[in-house]
Amino acid sequence: MTSLSTIAKVDNGVNVTALLSARESLQQVPEAAQFKWRAACQWLNGTHSRSVIGNFFGLGAEQSRSKTFAVEADHPKVFASEDHAPTPVELVLSGLASCLTAGVAAVAQRRGIQLHSVKATLEADMDIQGILGIDDDVRNGFGAIRVHFDIRADASEDDIKALVAQSQKRSAVFDVVTNPSSVFVTVN
Amino acid sequence: MTSLSTIAKVDNGVNVTALLSARESLQQVPEAAQFKWRAACQWLNGTHSRSVIGNFFGLGAEQSRSKTFAVEADHPKVFASEDHAPTPVELVLSGLASCLTAGVAAVAQRRGIQLHSVKATLEADMDIQGILGIDDDVRNGFGAIRVHFDIRADASEDDIKALVAQSQKRSAVFDVVTNPSSVFVTVN
Repeated sequence: MTSLSTIAKVDNGVNVTALLSARESLQQVPEAAQFKWRAACQWLNGTHSRSVIGNFFGLGAEQSRSKTFAVEADHPKVFASEDHAPTPVELVLSGLASCLTAGVAAVAQRRGIQLHSVKATLEADMDIQGILGIDDDVRNGFGAIRVHFDIRADASEDDIKALVAQSQKRSAVFDVVTNPSSVFVTVN
Repeated sequence: MTSLSTIAKVDNGVNVTALLSARESLQQVPEAAQFKWRAACQWLNGTHSRSVIGNFFGLGAEQSRSKTFAVEADHPKVFASEDHAPTPVELVLSGLASCLTAGVAAVAQRRGIQLHSVKATLEADMDIQGILGIDDDVRNGFGAIRVHFDIRADASEDDIKALVAQSQKRSAVFDVVTNPSSVFVTVN
């Protein structure tokens, strides 16, 4: 266990003290740990849409933000679209990349490791015979997804590898991508 | 089967003729259907990062874009973060929303249905005892995900429901979220 004084010497911009105290509070009040994340997507034209992200529910209450975020998506020109924005699958890759990256920063702070740079490069295979309905045996989504981390930090190679392993172990999006979730769709 | 003349009368901004012709070409050359999607994520500070999305591989060649896209992510203030951008899990919800919405537009065009508006509202449950490491039996990712579509179109309620069902059936991100994918992580 790294001592609190060592943690205080490194600064990755993560408030570990607050996170540890949140963990302690939530152990007493597990119902406060029930979150609801939201997005509202408006069709613009063709395959182009805009999702707005604002309030969420957590700590037993609606949580408002000082601003909302907009995330656009579209399809590229090879699909006869306008390429106004990333494709939806590229947004998912960004979500996976950013979740693992935030985890690396948080775990490094907790372990007293000063980070200098973190870069994650992702590539995901997809056989588009699935989405085009050419072959029902081909899945619509990704084949293999490869994530490569290039990390500069005041730590040994093994300690850096362990940061990434722990981030994976606690990553929400890594779990969403590697395990099935239930989606319930209703209309009008 | 809707006739081509009916398809031509509606305009959802989707070039169905090009998509049908692509499907026909790819049936002859299935290796051209092998795509690779990418994202490169740079850690900024704390839980804040920026993913850049540019080229992808498909149709047997590197496909360049006229511009790159940047997608930022962060954690909200209740996690002692700066809330500079959506959380990674909200990006995944946006990806699911936009994938299903683009599918609705494409299927509607194919079926000769004029859309007037499409709005998807998503909510996903998450018990954050998982990511905080409080309870190993709690998963890190989503519990149930609910998607509600509100669609105005020149079509019956049943035909509108069928649009959404077909979009789900061919959605890449719906597949990624509801089925497991393999992620291979390497470091340095």
